Amino acid sequence: MATQIEILKDIFESSVQKAAEIRALLREKKIYMIDVMSSPGSGKTTATDRLIGMLKGSYRIAVIEGDIKTTKDAEKLAKHDIPIIQIETALYNSDCHLESTWIKRCLEKFDLDKLNLVIIENIGNLICPAEFELGDDERFVMLSVAEGEDKPAKYPPMFRSAKTCILNKIDLLPYLDYDMNEVMENIRRVNPDMQVFKVSAKTGEGFDELVAYMRKNIDAKIRQP
Amino acid sequence: MATQIEILKDIFESSVQKAAEIRALLREKKIYMIDVMSSPGSGKTTATDRLIGMLKGSYRIAVIEGDIKTTKDAEKLAKHDIPIIQIETALYNSDCHLESTWIKRCLEKFDLDKLNLVIIENIGNLICPAEFELGDDERFVMLSVAEGEDKPAKYPPMFRSAKTCILNKIDLLPYLDYDMNEVMENIRRVNPDMQVFKVSAKTGEGFDELVAYMRKNIDAKIRQP
Repeated sequence: MATQIEILKDIFESSVQKAAEIRALLREKKIYMIDVMSSPGSGKTTATDRLIGMLKGSYRIAVIEGDIKTTKDAEKLAKHDIPIIQIETALYNSDCHLESTWIKRCLEKFDLDKLNLVIIENIGNLICPAEFELGDDERFVMLSVAEGEDKPAKYPPMFRSAKTCILNKIDLLPYLDYDMNEVMENIRRVNPDMQVFKVSAKTGEGFDELVAYMRKNIDAKIRQP
Repeated sequence: MATQIEILKDIFESSVQKAAEIRALLREKKIYMIDVMSSPGSGKTTATDRLIGMLKGSYRIAVIEGDIKTTKDAEKLAKHDIPIIQIETALYNSDCHLESTWIKRCLEKFDLDKLNLVIIENIGNLICPAEFELGDDERFVMLSVAEGEDKPAKYPPMFRSAKTCILNKIDLLPYLDYDMNEVMENIRRVNPDMQVFKVSAKTGEGFDELVAYMRKNIDAKIRQP
């Protein structure tokens, strides 16, 4: 039993160690990295598509796409003509999250001297990705209003692990019985300092505020002397 | 290393063994058990609520609710005055799926001689629950149309592990750019025999067909001599 515990500890430490290495690398290269997490189908790819369109004039962006299977998301973003790597976790036993070791390998494939923003689209899963450090500067948790108001209360580890919440699909609000006060209260209860942006990746509503906030955070890192 | 592999194998075998015990128990007691799986917020609880309302005149029903945190779902179903057990996996290190050992313990708490239908609402997760046998008779995978058409292609293990797909929230179709042919094609590609029901748990549309199908399956087991 002692042996087993040591092995598991080694694996975990190696993952944390790799995340620390990523952080050092991104600091050296002055690259900001964002990890976007959510349930399946809450709109990560559509939002990432819009963000790239709004940010690519100012930043040199690369994307790491995580999926169990298919390269659909990477294909959707191909029109931007930026470096994209798709990780298909089905190749690694259908893993339910991304790990720092894979992110490190992706970063080694990019020409980091030509980048200052990396966006990771994590596997669609509101649970497991919260536990794995990737060495990013910021984590976004996206939540579609079609998923209901109770998710922050039901998935507290995820909503505590991120500092920013993107409440997506607000274009659907007229057709849902959605209580905005309730979701905000549920967010505040598990993460009082969480920054919340209400957006529609479909129509673009709310993206000016989100992009202004992102620019401030990105610039603070990449423009430092 | 050999030791570690043996231990992991034991744990896995114990889980499969427990599922086999559950199957034998449910056969003896003539109880049908359904495991409902989906992403967070696709409508499992609202659908379960409606199904209980339509089925409780004919069957004696109990529910096992799985969540990381909160008893919200169990509370929503409390009005039906049926036995409900809530499993909060945060007590077990925020686990992302239900396990047969916990289901067995829940079944031991029910008066099985007074039941003929058990509905399990699994943790909201389109990945991990697919891998864990619970000893059920049937698995439903629920998918909200708000999640997009690509989910069966992106999460094949889940869509292969279930024999029935409940396509929920069709009341939102007029407000989404949703291609019904595309989702059906994606389902057929990973699971050609999958039975698909298009429903709205909110309005009740499509539930007559779903309930007729469920009655046939349940009766085939519980009415046998």
